[in-house]
Amino acid sequence: MNDFTFQNPTTLVFGKESTDQLPQMIEKYTEGKNILLTYGGGSIKKTGLYDRVIKLLEGYNVFELAGIEPNPRLSTVKKGVQAVKDNNIDFIVAIGGGSVIDGTKLISAASTSDVDPWDIVTRKATVESAVPFGTILTISATGSEMNSGSVITNWETNEKLGWGSPLVFPKFSLLNPELLYTLPKNQTANGIIDSMSHLLEQYFNEASNTEIGDAMISGVMKAIMKAGPVAMEQPENYEARETTMLGATVALNGFMRLGYAGDWATHNLEHAVSAVYDIPHGVGLAIIFPEWMRYVSKKSPARFIKFAEDVFDVDSSLSDEEKINFGIDAISNFWTSLGAPTKLSEVGVKEEDLEVFAEKTLIYGPYGNFYKLQKEDIMAIYHAAL
Amino acid sequence: MNDFTFQNPTTLVFGKESTDQLPQMIEKYTEGKNILLTYGGGSIKKTGLYDRVIKLLEGYNVFELAGIEPNPRLSTVKKGVQAVKDNNIDFIVAIGGGSVIDGTKLISAASTSDVDPWDIVTRKATVESAVPFGTILTISATGSEMNSGSVITNWETNEKLGWGSPLVFPKFSLLNPELLYTLPKNQTANGIIDSMSHLLEQYFNEASNTEIGDAMISGVMKAIMKAGPVAMEQPENYEARETTMLGATVALNGFMRLGYAGDWATHNLEHAVSAVYDIPHGVGLAIIFPEWMRYVSKKSPARFIKFAEDVFDVDSSLSDEEKINFGIDAISNFWTSLGAPTKLSEVGVKEEDLEVFAEKTLIYGPYGNFYKLQKEDIMAIYHAAL
Repeated sequence: MNDFTFQNPTTLVFGKESTDQLPQMIEKYTEGKNILLTYGGGSIKKTGLYDRVIKLLEGYNVFELAGIEPNPRLSTVKKGVQAVKDNNIDFIVAIGGGSVIDGTKLISAASTSDVDPWDIVTRKATVESAVPFGTILTISATGSEMNSGSVITNWETNEKLGWGSPLVFPKFSLLNPELLYTLPKNQTANGIIDSMSHLLEQYFNEASNTEIGDAMISGVMKAIMKAGPVAMEQPENYEARETTMLGATVALNGFMRLGYAGDWATHNLEHAVSAVYDIPHGVGLAIIFPEWMRYVSKKSPARFIKFAEDVFDVDSSLSDEEKINFGIDAISNFWTSLGAPTKLSEVGVKEEDLEVFAEKTLIYGPYGNFYKLQKEDIMAIYHAAL
Repeated sequence: MNDFTFQNPTTLVFGKESTDQLPQMIEKYTEGKNILLTYGGGSIKKTGLYDRVIKLLEGYNVFELAGIEPNPRLSTVKKGVQAVKDNNIDFIVAIGGGSVIDGTKLISAASTSDVDPWDIVTRKATVESAVPFGTILTISATGSEMNSGSVITNWETNEKLGWGSPLVFPKFSLLNPELLYTLPKNQTANGIIDSMSHLLEQYFNEASNTEIGDAMISGVMKAIMKAGPVAMEQPENYEARETTMLGATVALNGFMRLGYAGDWATHNLEHAVSAVYDIPHGVGLAIIFPEWMRYVSKKSPARFIKFAEDVFDVDSSLSDEEKINFGIDAISNFWTSLGAPTKLSEVGVKEEDLEVFAEKTLIYGPYGNFYKLQKEDIMAIYHAAL
C-alpha cells in the first residue's frame, strides 16, 4: 500500500425509519431555521417523499431549488448559490441521487464567497468554507452520499469534470432502501453498473500489497452481483435493495481504497462522452469499462488474472489469457444482462467525435494510475467501444 | 440488516512517515500547549520512539503518565485523571497498544468532571465531554485506535468491563507498520488472534441479509490469515505488518458491522477470566472462542456452515457437520500454529473458578446477540475450555 490519510466524518443513517430522523440530524449542525431543499425532476412529488419531508421540516423556513439535472449543470448550481445567498440559508437538504448531491456540493462550497463555482471545479479557486448539508438518497449509484467528491457538467464548454474537498462531505445521509422501490428499471441497472465501476477503478490501482482492499472490493462486488439481478426483477425486494444500496455507498466512501487511489481513467473517458451526449454515467461506463479492461489487460496482465480469481473464482486450469478474458467477459455479460448497451454508436456517438473526446480527456495530461493512457491508447479504447 | 447509524470521525494516518505528522495533527485540535503522554511499560524508550516523540513535541509542555498496564487498571486511570487536572492538559497523546489507548479513553472522559471513572465504565455516569486525544499505535490488536470503545479492569473488585462513548473516538491515530518490527512474537500472535476474534464476533451476528458485511469480514480474515504467519516468521516484513495492522484496525472500526452489533459473548467470557488471571486478552480468546463455536454450532448450525464456505471455501461435498467442524478446526489450528494455548488450565485456571467466572459474566443478565447464553451454556463452554 501507499501511505495514506483517511477520514470520513459523514453520519450514515440506514434503514426503514431513516427519513424520519431528518429534523434531529439537522439540529446537530445548525440552530438556524433557513433550509434549502435541492432536488431533481420532481419524482419526489409523485412518490410522496416531498410531502413527507415538508412535514418533517415544520418550523423551518423551507426554500427550494428544483430541477437539478442528471449530469448536474453549472448553470443550475449558480441558481442554487444565488438561492443560498438571497435567503441566508443555514443548511441544505439534498433529496435525490448522485447528480442532485454533486450539484449540492458545489452550491455548498461556492455559497460562502464570491468565487465563480466553475473555478472551484477547475481548481482555480480553493474551498475555504461550505454551507453544511445533508442528503436523503433516492437513487443508489454514485456513493456521493458519503464522500467528498462531485462531478459537474459545463454545457457552455462541454466539459464534465470531477472535483472534491473535505469540506463537502455530507454531514449526514439518510438511506432508506424502500425509497428505491419506485426507481425505473434502467436507473436501477445504471446504479449497479456505476457502483461496480467504482469498485473496478479501485481494484485496478497503483499500489502493491493491497490484500485488505482486494478482499473487501471483491467481496462487495460479489454481493452486488448477487443482489443486483434480484433488485431488477423484484423492485420491492427489501433485502436486494438493501444490499445494492449499502454496496454502492461503501464502494466509494473510502473504505475500499485505504492505501491507494485507484485508476479512474475510465471515468475520465466516460465523462468526455457524457459531456457531449447527455447519457447516464452508468450507460457510458458499461460500454467503455470492458474495452478499457481488454486493452489494458494486454499491457499489464497480472492484475487481471488476480481479478478473475478474486471475484469469479476462475477455474485454475485455464491459461492466463483465458482467465483474463473470463473475468472481463463476466463483467461485460453481467452488465448486458441488466440491459446496458455495449457500443457508443448505440447512444449516438459518431466516429468523428472520438478525437474530440480524447483531446478533452487529456486536459490535465496522460492519466490513469494503474496504467497511464496516452492519446493513442485512448483512441484505441474509444474505437473498440464505438 | 438492522437499521443502523454509523459515524467514525477518527483520522487514520497510515504508513512509514505517519509518526512525523504528530505536531501538525495536534494543531488541528488544540491551540493549547499542555500535552500528556500516556504509555505502558517503557518499551518505547528502548526502541527510540519516546525520544522521537519528545523531539516532535518541541515547543509543547509535555507531562507523562507511564506504566499503563496490559489490561489497564482503574487505579492507573485515576492517576491519569489527576495528571490532566493538575496540569491543565489540552491534549493527550497515547503511545502504545489497546491497553494504553483504552486507559487513555477513560482518562479523557473522566477528566472534565468530578465523576468517579468507574461510574463511567459501569454506566452509572454518562460522558458529557472529553479531553481530545490522539494515538501512536505500537501494538496492533484491539482496534481501539479507531473506535470509541474501551475495556478497563478494576482489581479491587476483579471486574473487567467494556464501555464506550462517541466522545472518545481518537481525533487521529498514526499507524506505522515499522513500529511493529520489535514486537515480541507472542504479542504479534495475540494481536492476530484478537483481530480475528473481532471479525468472528461480528460475523456471528443477530441480523439477516448481511451479505456486504459477510463478504468484507471473510475477506479481511483471509488476508490476515495469509499475512499473519509471515509477520510471525519475518518480523520486519513490511507488507505482512502492513496487512495485519490495517486488518486489525478495520476489524473493529465499524466498517465490518454496518447493520448489526455482532455476538460478543466470547469477549464477556474472556474478560471474566482475565479479570482474575492477568493473561493477555488474545490468549484467553484463543482458548475460549473455538469452544464457543463448537457449543453454539450445535444449537444454531446454519451460520457456521456459511462461515466455513465464506472463509475457507470448504469442500461442497462434505456433510453440514463436517463443514462446520472444518471451519472451527481451521480457526483453532491456525491459532495453535501461532503458539496460542488451547486450555484454560494451561494458564492456571482451576475448575472451582468457573462458577465465579460465570456469575461475573452474568452481571447484566444472559448475553450474546447471535445466541443468548444462559448460565448452563456458559458453564458448558468454560468446562470444555478448561
